[in-house]
Amino acid sequence: MPCPFLGSLNQTFVRNYGATLLKQYGSYCPVVSRGFRTLGSDETKCPFIQNNGPIISEAPKEMTEDIHDVPVVAPYQYDNFFHDQITAKKNDYSYRVFKKVSRLAADGLYPWALEGSEHRKVVVWCSNDYLGASRHPFVKNAAISAIKSYGTGAGGTRNIAGNSQMTEKLEAEIAKIHKKPAALIFSSCFVANDATLSTLAKILPGCIVYSDAGNHASMIHGIRNSRAQKHIFRHNDPSHLKELLAASPTGVPKLVVFETVHSMSGAICPLEEMCNIAHEYGALTFVDEVHAVGLYGKHGAGIAEERGIQNSIDIVSGTLGKAFGSVGGYIAGSSLLVDTVRSLAPGFIFTTALPPPVLAASLAAIRLLAGEEGRALRAKHQAIVRYLKLSLLIAGLPQLPSVSHIVPVPIKGADKVAQVADSLMKRGHYVQSINHPTVARGEERLRFAPGPYHTPEMIDGLIAALIEAFHENNIPFNEFMKNGTCRECRMEYKMDISYSEESRWSPPLMGIHNARRVLGRNRISDEEENGVVEVGVDHRNSHALKERNIERRYFTSVFCESVASYQSRRLIVLLQPN
Amino acid sequence: MPCPFLGSLNQTFVRNYGATLLKQYGSYCPVVSRGFRTLGSDETKCPFIQNNGPIISEAPKEMTEDIHDVPVVAPYQYDNFFHDQITAKKNDYSYRVFKKVSRLAADGLYPWALEGSEHRKVVVWCSNDYLGASRHPFVKNAAISAIKSYGTGAGGTRNIAGNSQMTEKLEAEIAKIHKKPAALIFSSCFVANDATLSTLAKILPGCIVYSDAGNHASMIHGIRNSRAQKHIFRHNDPSHLKELLAASPTGVPKLVVFETVHSMSGAICPLEEMCNIAHEYGALTFVDEVHAVGLYGKHGAGIAEERGIQNSIDIVSGTLGKAFGSVGGYIAGSSLLVDTVRSLAPGFIFTTALPPPVLAASLAAIRLLAGEEGRALRAKHQAIVRYLKLSLLIAGLPQLPSVSHIVPVPIKGADKVAQVADSLMKRGHYVQSINHPTVARGEERLRFAPGPYHTPEMIDGLIAALIEAFHENNIPFNEFMKNGTCRECRMEYKMDISYSEESRWSPPLMGIHNARRVLGRNRISDEEENGVVEVGVDHRNSHALKERNIERRYFTSVFCESVASYQSRRLIVLLQPN
Repeated sequence: MPCPFLGSLNQTFVRNYGATLLKQYGSYCPVVSRGFRTLGSDETKCPFIQNNGPIISEAPKEMTEDIHDVPVVAPYQYDNFFHDQITAKKNDYSYRVFKKVSRLAADGLYPWALEGSEHRKVVVWCSNDYLGASRHPFVKNAAISAIKSYGTGAGGTRNIAGNSQMTEKLEAEIAKIHKKPAALIFSSCFVANDATLSTLAKILPGCIVYSDAGNHASMIHGIRNSRAQKHIFRHNDPSHLKELLAASPTGVPKLVVFETVHSMSGAICPLEEMCNIAHEYGALTFVDEVHAVGLYGKHGAGIAEERGIQNSIDIVSGTLGKAFGSVGGYIAGSSLLVDTVRSLAPGFIFTTALPPPVLAASLAAIRLLAGEEGRALRAKHQAIVRYLKLSLLIAGLPQLPSVSHIVPVPIKGADKVAQVADSLMKRGHYVQSINHPTVARGEERLRFAPGPYHTPEMIDGLIAALIEAFHENNIPFNEFMKNGTCRECRMEYKMDISYSEESRWSPPLMGIHNARRVLGRNRISDEEENGVVEVGVDHRNSHALKERNIERRYFTSVFCESVASYQSRRLIVLLQPN
Repeated sequence: MPCPFLGSLNQTFVRNYGATLLKQYGSYCPVVSRGFRTLGSDETKCPFIQNNGPIISEAPKEMTEDIHDVPVVAPYQYDNFFHDQITAKKNDYSYRVFKKVSRLAADGLYPWALEGSEHRKVVVWCSNDYLGASRHPFVKNAAISAIKSYGTGAGGTRNIAGNSQMTEKLEAEIAKIHKKPAALIFSSCFVANDATLSTLAKILPGCIVYSDAGNHASMIHGIRNSRAQKHIFRHNDPSHLKELLAASPTGVPKLVVFETVHSMSGAICPLEEMCNIAHEYGALTFVDEVHAVGLYGKHGAGIAEERGIQNSIDIVSGTLGKAFGSVGGYIAGSSLLVDTVRSLAPGFIFTTALPPPVLAASLAAIRLLAGEEGRALRAKHQAIVRYLKLSLLIAGLPQLPSVSHIVPVPIKGADKVAQVADSLMKRGHYVQSINHPTVARGEERLRFAPGPYHTPEMIDGLIAALIEAFHENNIPFNEFMKNGTCRECRMEYKMDISYSEESRWSPPLMGIHNARRVLGRNRISDEEENGVVEVGVDHRNSHALKERNIERRYFTSVFCESVASYQSRRLIVLLQPN
């Protein structure tokens, strides 16, 4: 007969706390209590006992003498705990099942990949190999020849047999593009950020860290592990940074830590302003250019190079694993600082050095992207990014305002965004759904990163697939452009994907009548009517709008819908050229 | 004219505290005080002023009105701090200047390397590419073909475009050799240990960590960062572990963390005993097999496989960067545990996946070393290691007792050990001097790791160079074997480097008369006289000696000197075979 008491309890609870239950309630049980003492009928609430009266007396000695004291607590049930962790993630749809995609590198096969167990061909839209450097013949051949000469592994830490002439050449090349005296490479940029920040903030006496609220997990990790005092300032908000710094003691070491290009929103920070404020208060600037190196600036050194302010950064961190097409991370800075990190950071010291093919590929990619071909690739990259942003806009599909090459399409809900990604994959387009912990819950998105090898035709196909995927999953969106014609003014659209540095700061866009509405005035001159007006809205929602003409060559048609949901920082108003 | 007051002060002091000095003493200065007020002649101790009388009156308004209050505290001087850090390391000789060595991988060139700026050819003795997998044609070709097909980089995190079919194949292969349901790969084994331990110890509620005192920096780092309660037990001491566990509360989660093969001493832990104790107290075992994978066990899965106790380990961590000849690290364990780490560890989630050549090389190396060729390489490896240990012994050179393939030669003092390493490099032998923080101060050493491609002739050359290097740097050692003959019994020595599993536990050795002395008795039978007696001394200096015969084939001659300084845990007594 099953115990009516235990039967009413949760099985896991009984398994975990059986021993405690036995100790605490055993004496109330007609069976177990034989090992304890006589049981009086009114001492129990057990309905079974109550109906049967005081039938049980003290157990005889021979029945009790081999009964031992039961340990109070059972050993910890690890599997239950891990099971609960996994279940919790599955329940809130943040459990991840990695897609299997082998990105193809042979000529003409990039940016295609073989997906799943059936090795189906799909277009990859979410790789951080932004310029396809990982499949460039110059880069591949450098790696292959390094393997032939030096093998597949470094064979030791940097100190013990793992430091080759090539390692030092790569560090010199990195230092050169960032215009710093020294550079240091790490297993990854996660490790570079973690090891550098945790070491510096730990050893600098009384160091205070000022960390941007949007910082990448690697920086947060490093700052936390240093256990230094820290203040978090609002994402890309120099005035909040200034406020916090102004309230801090002078004469103590301080680190101001932020990124130039935000990985998940594509925002670019007000770099110069933030560095100036940091230096005004005697802080060192640690700036992560991970999503910018290879992609911006004349030699691909990032946003700081593009803006001509490389000197403003005290410590720049970058990656060899994204635009440079390999794996690994680095910092660059003053010789003394870099030497200190080299000498003291456990995450640098106690790990195997990067292998010859990674060093050779990285060196080749940096040189490639610093030259003419790199500049041409960057131009094509920005052009195709703009084409995608415009295409999304015209299709009425949502996109988060991004001033960089990262194009986020928000779809709220980890389940919903995964469903849309699956719908796209069925149609031959791989874009990863992004959920917690990579973005906050409720900020789920698809993150597109088109590259110079994506064609406008591929994007047209992607947009068609996206529209179908939104329909399939019942996600409403504003289809104001039907058949290539504006619903409002009936004009056709046509896109020009020619490149310019200026044109990067493009969408959201709007037509002239909506521009008038948004600007709250009618002051659009004849000259403007025939050109393009860029309207910059200050990133702290200030009402100060500034305007300037930019060249007309980039756009040739009119788009006639406001995109009110954009919450944008920058608006481009496109006017009909004639 | 230079200021006589400032001129007498240390320049750095003036630079750091200039503002404070100005505020505090400015009014005493005839020049600066113009901005302050009239200066009376007796208010100053300045000898310049005293000689010239009260010549200076209050400065006119127009000279003072643009003078602002100077902040009391100067900004922090980062460069001074970094300079002091570096100087401290230089002063105690722990500052590291990395040797530049490009290890050669073409046929017949391994284990040679090109050293320094002049690319001089040297033999490498300290690589962790223990079996030369990094230059094996099977491994190199796998990496090259992966580059051709899939490029040089993964292009994203595991979740975002970085997870290929090959990634999953490699994880399956790792799980298979370790006989675990699941495995997970990381950027490095530093990251594997750090991310796994910090995550598990943080999320398991109230987790207590028991950490071996000899643990690698990566494990210490992970445990620290978890901020869990931790206890450190004496290196490889199961009784201390038991003592600590017995004093701990039951029912709470616990992690027992240690290594099988110690990287710097070559010690091997009492694996089974430690796991049994851990499990007796309901703890999970986390065992680092980094210096064992590829090298021990039938399929190269490590010490646990060799001893047939793979089930005793709950979480095994290993590396792809040492015997497997590439870069990266991993854990293997239960599916739930591995899935939890995969889902929650920032160091796993937020970093670029390992690139195709690394995956392909690792997969090839694991398969290679799991098969016949791997077993043959392991046999040759152990044989050459034993040859080096015996050669050092015969030469009278010091060595720390090691039961594995790691052969440490102690040379106290970071300066001294570096000088010996330099003397060796001059003679064409590269072995890295090991100092703080890799080992404790005072425990400096050269760490030799000979491999299957080192020949006995190379070792003979190394020993000759070592003897010269010891002489050159005035380091005394016991040269009891001169010209291949024992000083005591005049017998010649000859070495047999044939391999057996048993023979790994070889030196220190001693001759029969010293064996009698050490054993404290004369009980060496006729049979023993013709064989080899292994005398094991329990690792906690117990007096319980146990003896057993092992096969005679390994040694053919007698060595006749005790090596009292060895403090050894195991002694092999070699007896003349006939």
